Amino acid sequence: MALYVQKFGGTSVGSIERIQAVADKVSKFREQGHQIVLVASAMSGETNRLIGLAEQIGEEPDARELDMLVSTGEQVTVSLLAMALKARGIDAISHTGAQAGICTDTAFSRARIQTIDTELMQQELAAGQVVVVAGFQGVDERGNITTLGRGGSDTTAVALAAALKADECQIYTDVDGVYTTDPRVCSKAQRLETITLEEMLELASLGSKVLQIRSVEFAGKYNVPLRVLSSFEDGPGTLIVAEEYELPQHMEEALISGIAFNTNEAKLTVLDTPDVPGVASKILGPIADANIEVDMIIQNASASGERTDFTFTVAKGDYKKAQRILEEQVISELGGEVKGDSDIAKVSLVGVGMRSHSGIASKMFQTLSKEGINIRLVSTSEIKISVVIDEKFVELAVRSLHTAFGLDRADISEEA
Amino acid sequence: MALYVQKFGGTSVGSIERIQAVADKVSKFREQGHQIVLVASAMSGETNRLIGLAEQIGEEPDARELDMLVSTGEQVTVSLLAMALKARGIDAISHTGAQAGICTDTAFSRARIQTIDTELMQQELAAGQVVVVAGFQGVDERGNITTLGRGGSDTTAVALAAALKADECQIYTDVDGVYTTDPRVCSKAQRLETITLEEMLELASLGSKVLQIRSVEFAGKYNVPLRVLSSFEDGPGTLIVAEEYELPQHMEEALISGIAFNTNEAKLTVLDTPDVPGVASKILGPIADANIEVDMIIQNASASGERTDFTFTVAKGDYKKAQRILEEQVISELGGEVKGDSDIAKVSLVGVGMRSHSGIASKMFQTLSKEGINIRLVSTSEIKISVVIDEKFVELAVRSLHTAFGLDRADISEEA
Repeated sequence: MALYVQKFGGTSVGSIERIQAVADKVSKFREQGHQIVLVASAMSGETNRLIGLAEQIGEEPDARELDMLVSTGEQVTVSLLAMALKARGIDAISHTGAQAGICTDTAFSRARIQTIDTELMQQELAAGQVVVVAGFQGVDERGNITTLGRGGSDTTAVALAAALKADECQIYTDVDGVYTTDPRVCSKAQRLETITLEEMLELASLGSKVLQIRSVEFAGKYNVPLRVLSSFEDGPGTLIVAEEYELPQHMEEALISGIAFNTNEAKLTVLDTPDVPGVASKILGPIADANIEVDMIIQNASASGERTDFTFTVAKGDYKKAQRILEEQVISELGGEVKGDSDIAKVSLVGVGMRSHSGIASKMFQTLSKEGINIRLVSTSEIKISVVIDEKFVELAVRSLHTAFGLDRADISEEA
Repeated sequence: MALYVQKFGGTSVGSIERIQAVADKVSKFREQGHQIVLVASAMSGETNRLIGLAEQIGEEPDARELDMLVSTGEQVTVSLLAMALKARGIDAISHTGAQAGICTDTAFSRARIQTIDTELMQQELAAGQVVVVAGFQGVDERGNITTLGRGGSDTTAVALAAALKADECQIYTDVDGVYTTDPRVCSKAQRLETITLEEMLELASLGSKVLQIRSVEFAGKYNVPLRVLSSFEDGPGTLIVAEEYELPQHMEEALISGIAFNTNEAKLTVLDTPDVPGVASKILGPIADANIEVDMIIQNASASGERTDFTFTVAKGDYKKAQRILEEQVISELGGEVKGDSDIAKVSLVGVGMRSHSGIASKMFQTLSKEGINIRLVSTSEIKISVVIDEKFVELAVRSLHTAFGLDRADISEEA
């Protein structure tokens, strides 16, 4: 008998039929004798409908009242789920975040969980009840309803799993696990049996949308075994483990776990700028002041030691604005020249294996060179190498790297 | 400066435009320096939408979960109302029943309020906030969300007014007060300035749908001045007062406050039945066992002292069923004959004035007789006389009694 916290997102509970399907799935686990805590999001579309009502009232809805409003979305789902379970003869009880004892700070719309009082839930689990908890929400010390912000239901699930010392936190989504890369780009992509938390963090921040970064961080902090699986089909999904866990043999051999890519960035370079202390902040200060987020930052060693080139990437939507700021506020003071390119793609190899293996980067560069793909920028972290290339090569780059690093599914030959 | 509890029903908050209109109305009261507690129902149609979802899940939804579900309707309204007030520069804060400290028993879907902890609300009122409370709901001692049943928002408002010792509990509806009779039947009907609680109770139970009986009883028990007014137009409405209140001069003179009528009943008579102890329960026992509610019950003194006639009225929908029960289960044992009529109407005069004035009944009978209306049944209580007549005469009876008892509006002459 195990204790599972199972989280179902908005699409998985998006209609009465899907809620019935979730109840069927949970019934099976319960019949196997497992204890279940269900965490559910609002039915897909409901949160946006409620926000739409608020926006009709006024342009900037009061933050406390907005949380009061949107928290009803999950409350509807959990009561329907509990009804559906009871209709199947499975004892169940639904809770709002407040009823489940999820206490947060008072930062409305982006509250952070501070404590969880599990006493009531533990009594209910011991009594054989499925405990159905509204995700995404909590209550502050004055009794105000708070929400945790986008993706908050994942965080609720992981936090409950940590507080209840669950055997596993299972995140049910519309994909059946974490893949070596996007199957729509590379048909040979394969589902990973396991992935480390660190790798998952790199993949999440690189654009894979399976899990919210915050819930992955949370799982790492509290050592919660996290599994991503499909709401719609049976299967083992992908287990996300802390690195201390003993990795299966084939994981040790794998240098690379996955390949992420992002075509939504643009690069900007300030050429021939003085190579003196403070120049980076002079360039990026006005960018930050304009609330533009910067991703990669690359400054090369200069040959002369006097002047250098400084490059960074921003989201494509901020490209024109960032370019104007550089030209109007930066070049005028520092001198130099601004060059930019929005037709770029970032491709990243992620894997804890690369720590102890040299040669990953050179193999990556070699593979891309063989395909005639020029590398514009390179940036590395301990478990990641990112390159920026021309956008038109992105699919070719992902597929060739996928093959070169041995990630292709065995059942599909390269010639297929 | 006064403290008002103001309740707005589902129609009054049925759209964003109407919520904005309520916020405008409340803003004016606030600007006059009054303290305001707002009680709101779910937007019209929302409760039925939610119940519809539950019914799609299963035929008999779990009662606890149904309360959890439908309570979201009021939560949506109060958060939108608080937003609308804040958008007008009026400080406001919304509360669920639980947050407002409304504690009930655990009778889901028909819970009764047991205590109200007003400490938080009193702090908020003292700080100049409009307190917006979700009607119709509370919380039991284990933290389960409960609902008070149909019309429960009126009860919430009256209970809050009692607990907060409010100067007045104002029920905003789609009519502008309590009328001497239904204006759709009698164009000379006029709005009453005041009415006593007892009269209101008689009128409410006789089919006037302005207020729920339970909230009127509650107002009587806790001496809460209750006022019914229109959400849509300005005006004083009708004040419902305890009888101990000093009545205005014109009230003392009025014998009759209003005329109620009901065309949804049918009458059944057991003719020539033995006039012995226990016969009434032998007739009504099987009716009660079939969950049929009985309204009027009339048994006349018999001339012979041996056999009598026994008559009662039921809702039209129960007529055929009740008739069959009498024939199959009662006559077979008692003997006699069953006669029935479903084309009847009940017309009632209500007024505390009739206590100290004789002659009301004879004037009523005389008026009806003059119009050629035959009286089938008569039943009286301390402040009410009800007669049953043929259904086709109901409008004529109401209009002629309205004129005879001096209830007609002065600005419309009898010939108009």
